[in-house]
Amino acid sequence: MTVDVGIIMGSQSDWPTMKLAAEILDELGITYETKIVSAHRTPDRLWDYGKTAADRGLKVIIAGAGGAAHLPGMMASKTRIPVVGVPVQTRALSGVDSLYSIVQMPRGFPVATMAIGGAANAGLMAAQILAVTDAALADRVDAWRDALSDSIPDAPSDD
Amino acid sequence: MTVDVGIIMGSQSDWPTMKLAAEILDELGITYETKIVSAHRTPDRLWDYGKTAADRGLKVIIAGAGGAAHLPGMMASKTRIPVVGVPVQTRALSGVDSLYSIVQMPRGFPVATMAIGGAANAGLMAAQILAVTDAALADRVDAWRDALSDSIPDAPSDD
Amino acid sequence: MTVDVGIIMGSQSDWPTMKLAAEILDELGITYETKIVSAHRTPDRLWDYGKTAADRGLKVIIAGAGGAAHLPGMMASKTRIPVVGVPVQTRALSGVDSLYSIVQMPRGFPVATMAIGGAANAGLMAAQILAVTDAALADRVDAWRDALSDSIPDAPSDD
Amino acid sequence: MTVDVGIIMGSQSDWPTMKLAAEILDELGITYETKIVSAHRTPDRLWDYGKTAADRGLKVIIAGAGGAAHLPGMMASKTRIPVVGVPVQTRALSGVDSLYSIVQMPRGFPVATMAIGGAANAGLMAAQILAVTDAALADRVDAWRDALSDSIPDAPSDD
Amino acid sequence: MTVDVGIIMGSQSDWPTMKLAAEILDELGITYETKIVSAHRTPDRLWDYGKTAADRGLKVIIAGAGGAAHLPGMMASKTRIPVVGVPVQTRALSGVDSLYSIVQMPRGFPVATMAIGGAANAGLMAAQILAVTDAALADRVDAWRDALSDSIPDAPSDD
Amino acid sequence: MTVDVGIIMGSQSDWPTMKLAAEILDELGITYETKIVSAHRTPDRLWDYGKTAADRGLKVIIAGAGGAAHLPGMMASKTRIPVVGVPVQTRALSGVDSLYSIVQMPRGFPVATMAIGGAANAGLMAAQILAVTDAALADRVDAWRDALSDSIPDAPSDD
Amino acid sequence: MTVDVGIIMGSQSDWPTMKLAAEILDELGITYETKIVSAHRTPDRLWDYGKTAADRGLKVIIAGAGGAAHLPGMMASKTRIPVVGVPVQTRALSGVDSLYSIVQMPRGFPVATMAIGGAANAGLMAAQILAVTDAALADRVDAWRDALSDSIPDAPSDD
Amino acid sequence: MTVDVGIIMGSQSDWPTMKLAAEILDELGITYETKIVSAHRTPDRLWDYGKTAADRGLKVIIAGAGGAAHLPGMMASKTRIPVVGVPVQTRALSGVDSLYSIVQMPRGFPVATMAIGGAANAGLMAAQILAVTDAALADRVDAWRDALSDSIPDAPSDD
Repeated sequence: MTVDVGIIMGSQSDWPTMKLAAEILDELGITYETKIVSAHRTPDRLWDYGKTAADRGLKVIIAGAGGAAHLPGMMASKTRIPVVGVPVQTRALSGVDSLYSIVQMPRGFPVATMAIGGAANAGLMAAQILAVTDAALADRVDAWRDALSDSIPDAPSDD
Repeated sequence: MTVDVGIIMGSQSDWPTMKLAAEILDELGITYETKIVSAHRTPDRLWDYGKTAADRGLKVIIAGAGGAAHLPGMMASKTRIPVVGVPVQTRALSGVDSLYSIVQMPRGFPVATMAIGGAANAGLMAAQILAVTDAALADRVDAWRDALSDSIPDAPSDD
Repeated sequence: MTVDVGIIMGSQSDWPTMKLAAEILDELGITYETKIVSAHRTPDRLWDYGKTAADRGLKVIIAGAGGAAHLPGMMASKTRIPVVGVPVQTRALSGVDSLYSIVQMPRGFPVATMAIGGAANAGLMAAQILAVTDAALADRVDAWRDALSDSIPDAPSDD
Repeated sequence: MTVDVGIIMGSQSDWPTMKLAAEILDELGITYETKIVSAHRTPDRLWDYGKTAADRGLKVIIAGAGGAAHLPGMMASKTRIPVVGVPVQTRALSGVDSLYSIVQMPRGFPVATMAIGGAANAGLMAAQILAVTDAALADRVDAWRDALSDSIPDAPSDD
Repeated sequence: MTVDVGIIMGSQSDWPTMKLAAEILDELGITYETKIVSAHRTPDRLWDYGKTAADRGLKVIIAGAGGAAHLPGMMASKTRIPVVGVPVQTRALSGVDSLYSIVQMPRGFPVATMAIGGAANAGLMAAQILAVTDAALADRVDAWRDALSDSIPDAPSDD
Repeated sequence: MTVDVGIIMGSQSDWPTMKLAAEILDELGITYETKIVSAHRTPDRLWDYGKTAADRGLKVIIAGAGGAAHLPGMMASKTRIPVVGVPVQTRALSGVDSLYSIVQMPRGFPVATMAIGGAANAGLMAAQILAVTDAALADRVDAWRDALSDSIPDAPSDD
Repeated sequence: MTVDVGIIMGSQSDWPTMKLAAEILDELGITYETKIVSAHRTPDRLWDYGKTAADRGLKVIIAGAGGAAHLPGMMASKTRIPVVGVPVQTRALSGVDSLYSIVQMPRGFPVATMAIGGAANAGLMAAQILAVTDAALADRVDAWRDALSDSIPDAPSDD
Repeated sequence: MTVDVGIIMGSQSDWPTMKLAAEILDELGITYETKIVSAHRTPDRLWDYGKTAADRGLKVIIAGAGGAAHLPGMMASKTRIPVVGVPVQTRALSGVDSLYSIVQMPRGFPVATMAIGGAANAGLMAAQILAVTDAALADRVDAWRDALSDSIPDAPSDD
């Protein structure tokens, strides 16, 4: 069975961050798969995933990694499908290392980089990309955004 | 006449950076428009652009800005169309200010952030997004990428 | 009823920081209102607030936000009333992202930026601005400052 | 004769930056004086300036300095008049040292900090502060801002 | 009674850091006084302390402060006595703000800057300065250093 | 008895980090010794260690230190044996100080620098260096790497 | 014919930096090859290079790259041969992006990271690794180091 | 013949920075020597210099270095004489690497750190240290400082 989005991450420890992306996709009714693809520990898995992604029908890949975070950029090298990158927060450098490793890609291989830890937004960006040619999804995205806006109270409260 | 991509920027001084995006779109045969939309100096222009973007048929917006770079994020707030952000290099802080102002968006309003000065990649990301449902464009993107790879010499040369 | 100062913030989570501004205004007998105005989630609320601020009699706006902190700068774009910006501390980048997003405003639209988390000083700056033409308030500000100075012990103590 | 704004700076070398503030005040018809007040080389001059500022009728002080930039904060300590601080760009640290030295003021003594090199905005902030109770100036500020907005071209041009 | 070293700090909250300096001076038999001198809250106290320091017989001043840490540099401006600066660690910026505010002094007014939180070393630097012309103290400093070296075990242990 | 690797560190407090290197060497059957060698507190120990290292048969030195981390670079100055440097995480600057002090070595004296806190990788780098001419060890390193790769699950799990 | 060292780099533009490594190897009589291997533009070339490196008889790989510098780390993932990484200086971020992308490798896949632009030291590190079991080369490295030390003048001169 | 101050530096290329210290000492009539002492290329020279410094009658050592700047700290380890450190500006990291390598010294071995490039202040700090027990020099330092203050013009000028 085909899914629209692949959520991949460098290690199990990235999952508490990355599942925020999965939750958004669930809310918006978008199909996805999750997979651990370590750029360094399982490079061939990365290769295979990238090479087959388009043929398998994937439309967007969300990739999260921390530190010397090579997964999003290497995946962007292996497939023409849009890659949304999530810099995972790290212990010593707070994710600045992850951010620089993901966002500073050379000409030819963009990664759509989100905020440090911003996996929920990665789910939304995937949805917005799919919504470009899916009017029903576009309506659901609009409704999601409207609900978010409507949830903002008028004034702050002390409790 | 409808175009697929809007290239907007905070000021005329961003154009030498942003036209790299236009050049990629030209190479790939993607229609686009260019516009100066200053978040701070022409906020109503930003409002109008964002509100009408989807109805006008725009599919991706590329937004570049420098310093306290609010244009990409505010545009992402006003439209569900994917916004690709380009942090423009700045004099004192080299574009770290632009990068942080663009990439660190809160939950709900992602900006697909490129490298500092990475407007060419913004063009490619727009193409890759459009190629999700445009097989002919996908072929052109693949060809562009193949040509880039083929252009890499085997060994470095001294001149 | 008209108040002199508007304290606005991007989300409820900014309130523990921003209420330090409210406390100072209370101490100095300055009237104020508090409101959640999210640049991204409630952009039209931002627009309305900015457009009507002067006519409603507001004299200073204190705006706090974190991350890609666009609220102070966008408010400064919509009204000529002085905007005092408070960068709220963030998890990954400790508020450096907030600081750069607020302080690095382009020519034309200054934000009077305070220290990261410095909402108390935002209240004081609002007071000092109002005191320029309010001699009674000036006396209260002077007394507040004198009391602060008088509270400093001569030598440090171990407990 | 009394002027409304004092523009002070740590050294002659800050003047190319700081005169942008003076130019704005000239455009807006605001009276001002300029003075070199070095926190470290002429501390007594700083003391005197701060102590007499209010009595001399000054309403806003614009203070620029670079490196260990103590002038704005120390001036804020000596007078209740609003101090607008301009971090001057430096050679090794690009003005990050100036910015941190100016913006990170402790509770009690705010400095309204501008962008690195942002002296023009310091002039505007002074104007906006004065405009709180000067309707004619408020109109001039509005006109200045409108003219700035009107000067923005619709689209970028190659030359 | 005259003491050789003055330990001053911007606030009571700096004392847990600064008392490490006092402890070293105690160990080395150097007389000292402790005092809270806030550059911003008690500027006149700073002035008086600096102006009278040499005449009172002080030979070294140790000054600690955090954030926009102006105390060491302003004290260096007011007295020719060597000032040893201690950047106190801060919440948002970890003391980088303190460090830059202390170390980046302009030509003419050096501050002998220690590591962030390095108050013990400030005590030692004061001792080493006094030892330049005090042979007995020099011997005590040498002994202190030898004892420190002798305390280093040969190999690490697990408990 | 001769060992192949020397693990040295600036202080006992570095051991919790550095023992990760020892554990890797144990797993790979590589002989080693551990020693505290403080560049500043025991400089002569550093001298002796460096001067005798090659004659004693050491083949790789792993050196960890934090803050102004001079141990790895000074050891590299005293011996031609490859030095693998481990920047130990620090309190105020998170190990950026350690990293810069270790990696930014001048021409002539390289230190093979690992990630902040990356002592396990220092053990692996030592093993890989020794494996260049030790086929049996090369096989063990390959097996270790294969086992690591095989341990990666296919998909993330919630517990 | 077999060479001992492979010098690879992400693009032709890295060669002015990387040839400093080649020059050192020439001086020390070490055989090497040079090759452009772009992690993103020629990922399959990277794969092949890494997979065949050991069998081809390479003993050390020197890899230089800039920005989101994935080449050294990905090569370290594909071969057990020691990889020496050179962060190439970049325009916006001065090579801090390159440094973080190279040095912050996860457990299992170390890269022996050099200073930003430190390719000469990469050549020396390769030599020192080979010298572990090559006494004649060890003598040449010692002589090279001695000559460097002997070249240092006693005192600075004005011309 | 004995001199009071030793000015040492890591390489000839540091001399344009470090001679600013020599010029100040000349102005103040303080005797000094200059020497190139490379921590890494001439470690034994460093050792000898440090060990004999006190016996040779040196009273203060000024040490400048860039990058992984180990000279000041290692000298502080070898002698009890006060070491004044000057971080020399570097190409990639602007001297932040030098600053962190010099200032972040561990407990026991302080280096009196100056601003990046602040060699003139190193000369003044040496003078202030010597002036603690040299009344004539104290007068000359006071005069130098007074002259500096007197040289400050009252207002900035355009040429």
